[in-house]
Amino acid sequence: MVVEGHALANVLLAGYVLGAPLGTAPVVIVVGGITASPFPFGDAASGTEPWWPALAGPDLIDPARVTVLCPCWPGNGSTWQGFDDAPIPALSALGLADLIAAWLDGIGCATPATYIGASLGGLVGIAFAVRHPERCTRLVTISAGLRPDGWGTATRHLQRELVKDGLRTGDVATGMARARQLGMLTYRGRDELDTRFGVLEAGLAVPPVAAYLDHHGARFAAKFPVRTFLLLSDAIDRCRFGTDPAAVRAELARVTAEVVVVGVPGDLLFPYHLQNELYRELQAVGAACSLWKLDSEFGHDAFLADQDRLALLLRDAGVFVQTTGAASSVAACSSCSRARPWRARNATAWRSRSRAWPCAIRRSRAAPSPRGSP
Amino acid sequence: MVVEGHALANVLLAGYVLGAPLGTAPVVIVVGGITASPFPFGDAASGTEPWWPALAGPDLIDPARVTVLCPCWPGNGSTWQGFDDAPIPALSALGLADLIAAWLDGIGCATPATYIGASLGGLVGIAFAVRHPERCTRLVTISAGLRPDGWGTATRHLQRELVKDGLRTGDVATGMARARQLGMLTYRGRDELDTRFGVLEAGLAVPPVAAYLDHHGARFAAKFPVRTFLLLSDAIDRCRFGTDPAAVRAELARVTAEVVVVGVPGDLLFPYHLQNELYRELQAVGAACSLWKLDSEFGHDAFLADQDRLALLLRDAGVFVQTTGAASSVAACSSCSRARPWRARNATAWRSRSRAWPCAIRRSRAAPSPRGSP
Repeated sequence: MVVEGHALANVLLAGYVLGAPLGTAPVVIVVGGITASPFPFGDAASGTEPWWPALAGPDLIDPARVTVLCPCWPGNGSTWQGFDDAPIPALSALGLADLIAAWLDGIGCATPATYIGASLGGLVGIAFAVRHPERCTRLVTISAGLRPDGWGTATRHLQRELVKDGLRTGDVATGMARARQLGMLTYRGRDELDTRFGVLEAGLAVPPVAAYLDHHGARFAAKFPVRTFLLLSDAIDRCRFGTDPAAVRAELARVTAEVVVVGVPGDLLFPYHLQNELYRELQAVGAACSLWKLDSEFGHDAFLADQDRLALLLRDAGVFVQTTGAASSVAACSSCSRARPWRARNATAWRSRSRAWPCAIRRSRAAPSPRGSP
Repeated sequence: MVVEGHALANVLLAGYVLGAPLGTAPVVIVVGGITASPFPFGDAASGTEPWWPALAGPDLIDPARVTVLCPCWPGNGSTWQGFDDAPIPALSALGLADLIAAWLDGIGCATPATYIGASLGGLVGIAFAVRHPERCTRLVTISAGLRPDGWGTATRHLQRELVKDGLRTGDVATGMARARQLGMLTYRGRDELDTRFGVLEAGLAVPPVAAYLDHHGARFAAKFPVRTFLLLSDAIDRCRFGTDPAAVRAELARVTAEVVVVGVPGDLLFPYHLQNELYRELQAVGAACSLWKLDSEFGHDAFLADQDRLALLLRDAGVFVQTTGAASSVAACSSCSRARPWRARNATAWRSRSRAWPCAIRRSRAAPSPRGSP
């Protein structure tokens, strides 16, 4: 398998299915950020917390009437020979979209789908709609853009350098923790951070925000696969649809999906003007598109931290109304040439570094449960 | 000497004088950011580049008709017993203002002065006007505020953690470099960063911004005193004028100076709303104040990178027009109890870690030279 010029051997692509059996209903593909689990509505069997519970419902993503597909990221569910021990291949969000398309091939899903993604998932969604237009009838891309901006790239580069410092010194846990802490400074809105934590008073050695950063840094370092972080972070910064504006528009002109662009003013990671830019460029090539502003103090993380408001917006936008239509003919679930059966006892192992569920299909029932961020 | 509750022994406070001899002319105190040298207009003897050349001139800061005083930061010119080997005392910008006042006492300067400061220097300037109103007839505070905001505090905390990681592992150079690189992400405007560097193309291992970050990180790590960085960074985050709004206003009510507040929309480190907040609070206590917006794509660093525009703004504001007045009576240059003579051969040593110029007075002639940032 060749993705963006890289020959990937012994590819094991994995993902999960929820709701109506594949082939019997419209398909909704759900993709979150770098650290998102493939269980947006949770997974009772593995005890995985949902990260998008507000989007499950009769008028939004309804597992009773649609098939929900959730692909895994490379190294965190999906993998390939050499990924865990060779230099990390330089993939972009475009290649990640190709991997999702390959996974859909692997499980025999040819149904044109609604794709909804946020953050990295939103970026990959644009690539999916551009490179696989026949697979994508509707795209909801949240807090993403056509490209990263320079500040975002510089910030992610420094995050990767911190991880690599850790790899060099043998203290990768500190490197991962510091990278995550830097990330935390970009995920939330500035106004929220200004009111949420206390100040560095005379009697304190460190500001109150230190505990918040320590907590998130340690949790990330303990659980998240290092190579997946490096690959996905890099993939954001390598995301380009062309070397000049004309080339970008020529690529965008391939989009046949109706595109709903959602952005949050105050997003520090993918500023609102990047969503505006995406919308304008889609307009310029005649794509059916709309731009929706999500007013939230939570910045980039609004899709998680303010998801009730996002759900309201998506209802207003009527995004999932038409997914009640009949499903196209799809093949039954199949598996790629290297498929192995998914094993329930490994349900929580999606966070582990080398676990793979090749083209695995899992049914999961969304249960009301406390909201958790990935 | 006691500053903010800390007894500082064997205090060696230093600074430089430029222009008219002390006691013969109005006084202008110039204070820059954490890394600024005490030579805003350069120093030919030591080869130090000027960092504020655009502000030297007949209608701005004119050494021909004013005495320019530039205090040194602790550990970078000024020091005290124990600073270099004991735990770093928890000082705030308020304590730094007290140290400047003590230095003025030490050199026998009682002339009420115009204070102009940017970044940390701007923050300390507010404290100077609040705590030593009899010394400050006019204050120009640029890209600062009454307090840091939560995002800024979190970012500086992470910078300090990176330095401390380096101190723990013995690789403080990497810690200082990473801290500076994180700082670089806050100094410039986002739009500038988005257009200044190239993108992470397929053939590249790292984005083009990496060289910029590496350069600044290495330069900082090689030259800047670690303990001074930790102290000054902490001092920003400890800057509070009171524990509640009423207490803050009670302190601000002590200001008798005419205050010119300058801010840059797009400043990532001290966002413009902090300058707006400062201006509103000064208004609320009846202080003579004005708010000036410096439109620049350079964000926090506009006071350096767009200094011609800043100079124009300060001319418009008429800030230095009245400093042509007669000087108050001041004592001749004296020195504190531990004074040692300044030695010309150490002119470049202001960057070294433990070099002290106790209450040293140096005459320097501003020469037209290429603009350099500190």
